Amino acid sequence: MNFNYYLPVNVVFGCGKVKEAGEIAKKYGKKALIVTGRSSAKKSGLYDRVNDSLKAAGMESALFDKVAQNPLTTTAEEGAEFAKENGCDVVIAIGGGSIMDCAKAIAFLSVNEGDINDYIFNRKQSDQALPLILIPTTCGTGSEGNGFAVLTNPENGDKKSLRCNAIIAKASIVDPECMMTMPKKVLASVGFDALCHSMEAYTSKISQPFTDALALYAMERIADSLVDLYNGSEDMEKWESITIASTIGGMVINQAGVTLAHGMEHPASGLKDIVHGNGLAALTPVIVEASWKGNEAKFARISKILGGSSAADCAAQIRSLLEKIDLAVTLSDLGLAEEDVPWMAENCMKVSAASVANNPVVFTQEEIAEIYRKAM
Amino acid sequence: MNFNYYLPVNVVFGCGKVKEAGEIAKKYGKKALIVTGRSSAKKSGLYDRVNDSLKAAGMESALFDKVAQNPLTTTAEEGAEFAKENGCDVVIAIGGGSIMDCAKAIAFLSVNEGDINDYIFNRKQSDQALPLILIPTTCGTGSEGNGFAVLTNPENGDKKSLRCNAIIAKASIVDPECMMTMPKKVLASVGFDALCHSMEAYTSKISQPFTDALALYAMERIADSLVDLYNGSEDMEKWESITIASTIGGMVINQAGVTLAHGMEHPASGLKDIVHGNGLAALTPVIVEASWKGNEAKFARISKILGGSSAADCAAQIRSLLEKIDLAVTLSDLGLAEEDVPWMAENCMKVSAASVANNPVVFTQEEIAEIYRKAM
Repeated sequence: MNFNYYLPVNVVFGCGKVKEAGEIAKKYGKKALIVTGRSSAKKSGLYDRVNDSLKAAGMESALFDKVAQNPLTTTAEEGAEFAKENGCDVVIAIGGGSIMDCAKAIAFLSVNEGDINDYIFNRKQSDQALPLILIPTTCGTGSEGNGFAVLTNPENGDKKSLRCNAIIAKASIVDPECMMTMPKKVLASVGFDALCHSMEAYTSKISQPFTDALALYAMERIADSLVDLYNGSEDMEKWESITIASTIGGMVINQAGVTLAHGMEHPASGLKDIVHGNGLAALTPVIVEASWKGNEAKFARISKILGGSSAADCAAQIRSLLEKIDLAVTLSDLGLAEEDVPWMAENCMKVSAASVANNPVVFTQEEIAEIYRKAM
Repeated sequence: MNFNYYLPVNVVFGCGKVKEAGEIAKKYGKKALIVTGRSSAKKSGLYDRVNDSLKAAGMESALFDKVAQNPLTTTAEEGAEFAKENGCDVVIAIGGGSIMDCAKAIAFLSVNEGDINDYIFNRKQSDQALPLILIPTTCGTGSEGNGFAVLTNPENGDKKSLRCNAIIAKASIVDPECMMTMPKKVLASVGFDALCHSMEAYTSKISQPFTDALALYAMERIADSLVDLYNGSEDMEKWESITIASTIGGMVINQAGVTLAHGMEHPASGLKDIVHGNGLAALTPVIVEASWKGNEAKFARISKILGGSSAADCAAQIRSLLEKIDLAVTLSDLGLAEEDVPWMAENCMKVSAASVANNPVVFTQEEIAEIYRKAM
């Protein structure tokens, strides 16, 4: 067993912690670029609370509110131009995974020249970026816990992540209260994404003791909270559970990577702009059915956490969970069709080579195409 | 639930990783101060292997080999003078907890002026130190995973830790092969210390999700390996288990602290220079008997990991483990006597105030004196 473990995340966790944003951010700069989506951070009042906190700490700010789901490399480029024009020296994201990922790419492009696709495909490297403060408003992506930013290239549909330690947040303000305004449908989708992060990191061929320990803990927390919260529970401990489990999910994939479900979902959502967690819901049970024999001990442990008894019934346990959160969907339900399979299978080998290799069973392009068909 | 989690450890783990010391160290400096004990790193050949690796990487080195068990503040001062005289710009420790802790203090004093006791008792602060590379040769202290350095003041016997992020290693080279030359008696003592770190962090009043997740994992690993290794097993997976569990033990106490066993052991070994793990072995069962009602759920989980069934039998499980590794000792066996109790109880309140406060049941000085008597 050989591994490296280095993940200098700085998690500031607790209800109401958002009000410390200004005091935290002023350690890193004088003028913040605040990155949000088009409306929800304004509607919920969170944008105002963060901005007031910055003002109280003597900081200036500029707002970039153009980030949409499955953020584009071109939006990040536009944001970086905006940050430079406005003289921003720190980037603060308020939002879900799309917004945090776009903010990371903006922080990166603000100090690095050239085409971002060169950095995404490792043709160029840099360990510099503007300092980042991340404030997640969904408990799924875990972007606040890692150095990944998933972006889609609008020219060719490639959805792939920029990965470097420079885009690990200087501080992630993880406030369970920020999650409580999520619509039920969003909670189901992001909560399942969080579960997938820990399941995939735990079964990844490059898993290691630190990621195993954290992933096991996070899966237990999600198993204990997601369905109840979906059914309307307001139990604060359960909100804390799913929130910290989501951040942990982001951390474990930074070290252990994701496996085939994420690897196969990226081509699907790169092609059709579908909701990431829904794509995972369509693919994961089919992939686990095809993969559990690759690591029976670990799939058995997951199955037990979800209420099952053995590796062989792990996929069934996942399906049962998905039914309870009304997320038992197929790729056809999400707008994909048989004729999309060849492109997706080919694109998967291109953008997700590492995830394909991390899976407990390594499949060929033809086998991956067959899994897409079974998930239709 | 509110907490911060920030621990930028950089663990390089694996058999034979020691040979990468030079390549790793040269990122941080040109001339290394190598800190060792009087003889064992030389006898085992490890000093030569590290030094050869430094030479191959084009680095110079100077050797400071004067560190003894329970290192003194005065030895650290002497080491820092030696580092300055020799123009060293990076510090490499090869050894157990005493040596790593002394090296941390040397790295700290090499760039900070004044009396180290002022920093230990928080009358002064600094976030600067020479970069540190730690190579543990025992699996107990976990010093390679945290920003603590426990030192003893020879003037008054105070044994207390310097704590700051500047003395977290830039890289910890954790090589299970380095552990395999430990004498059986040392393995028992340091392995129990490692278990105590995780038990104490897990039951600490300032435990948090990250420390819980890691401590649970580490306790399982130790329960699964320590007795077999003590009995002569050469199973490499078990050596890897106890080695990583020890590093994790160091990490979790950085965030969650230790509790009463460590808090009460420091006065004992500060007074009589006893082996730290042996002092813990004498104290822990008595303290757990007095403390388990303070957190029944967590002591029950520990008990189950050790083969028991409930919080009430946790102390018995620990005693049973200690018998299996021939470490069922009393404070009297270690050379302490009834007349030492008043000084130890008073000193415990002075040097271990935080550990006393972290314990699931908070005891008065009189109650702590009574626990010392029961452990005689």
